[in-house]
Amino acid sequence: MNTASREQLVGQLNWRYATKAFDPQKKIEPADWAALEEALRLSPSSIGLQLWKFIVVDDPAVREKLRAAGYAQPQITDAAKLVVFAVKTDITEADIDAHLEEIAKVRGVSLESLAPLRGMAMASVIQAMDAEARVAWAKRQVYIALGTFLTSAALLGIDACPMEGFSPPDFDSILGLPEKGLASVVIATAGQRAADDKYAGLAKVRFPLDRVLVRI
Amino acid sequence: MNTASREQLVGQLNWRYATKAFDPQKKIEPADWAALEEALRLSPSSIGLQLWKFIVVDDPAVREKLRAAGYAQPQITDAAKLVVFAVKTDITEADIDAHLEEIAKVRGVSLESLAPLRGMAMASVIQAMDAEARVAWAKRQVYIALGTFLTSAALLGIDACPMEGFSPPDFDSILGLPEKGLASVVIATAGQRAADDKYAGLAKVRFPLDRVLVRI
Repeated sequence: MNTASREQLVGQLNWRYATKAFDPQKKIEPADWAALEEALRLSPSSIGLQLWKFIVVDDPAVREKLRAAGYAQPQITDAAKLVVFAVKTDITEADIDAHLEEIAKVRGVSLESLAPLRGMAMASVIQAMDAEARVAWAKRQVYIALGTFLTSAALLGIDACPMEGFSPPDFDSILGLPEKGLASVVIATAGQRAADDKYAGLAKVRFPLDRVLVRI
Repeated sequence: MNTASREQLVGQLNWRYATKAFDPQKKIEPADWAALEEALRLSPSSIGLQLWKFIVVDDPAVREKLRAAGYAQPQITDAAKLVVFAVKTDITEADIDAHLEEIAKVRGVSLESLAPLRGMAMASVIQAMDAEARVAWAKRQVYIALGTFLTSAALLGIDACPMEGFSPPDFDSILGLPEKGLASVVIATAGQRAADDKYAGLAKVRFPLDRVLVRI
């Protein structure tokens, strides 16, 4: 283990904030960005199904279009990086089998030995939910990846801003997501705060612990 | 800044796994647990509304009841800590005002100066969504806190297991949530893996990056 300290964790979570103005000149070091992509990849999800796609948009022309579909928020073009968190919209038995095949490959076990896991996944994902409920559930999973990403960026000292203020149908259309069986859920921008972002200096606002946490 | 290194971040995210067997004798150091509670408190949420409650269940008798409502999964009683992530079920204008009042207090600004933020929050949360959509949206936010919690625990070297396999209505009833305007969404257990947890030694299964990440 190569753990972080409590002071690092809490200090960096206090340091982070939803960055409103990024310095458009500042890039993220490639090795840092690779670590954040790896954090996305390693993000937990229910049953490990990973029913998501992370779309990293670097193309400036596409960014411009997305900005127009995102209430003209400057982060969308100014941040060094933009990630569109997308969900699979047609979740079927094949998604469960894709995961099982990956398990079999990585762990060198037979698919037959995974039959109990398959039965559980089929029951809880395919049989217990209709198509709409499945997508709603998979969308919630996407927010685990968002939380992983934001916490990871904070730990590395990289500014980020999660954003729901955009038109998902417009984003989907610009990125060609429907034909890929995907839909945008939430986005995050990352980079370095502008020296004059007035939000950077504001005190963080969170309820006191006793208002959000109950002990039983 | 007191950042973690890329190696720490990626190393600890690889170290973590959904712990199936906890050592019931191993507790979490109080200072470490306090840091994890602080990570929950500091978790980002849309517009900063924090429409959640984290229920930390220490009472062994309550844990026993919850285990029965959680497919008898041993983590629910054996883990040092159990957190039930709950969402507010009646989200109204008052929730927006509670947040604005906290901003005014913490930042020493007038409520009047926050009128534009209030207008945005009212439009996007109250006017744009009906009660059902609001709860569905708030539930997604809860998963940001879950991602924050799991990543934070991994960074500190604390084992954890996110769990959706439980009966939310039964959990709600055992914890008395409906009368508090809350509903359970997802749970997490935390502590130290048992020496004989056979899952601890298994290779982590994630799709290769090019299967979950697209560059545009």
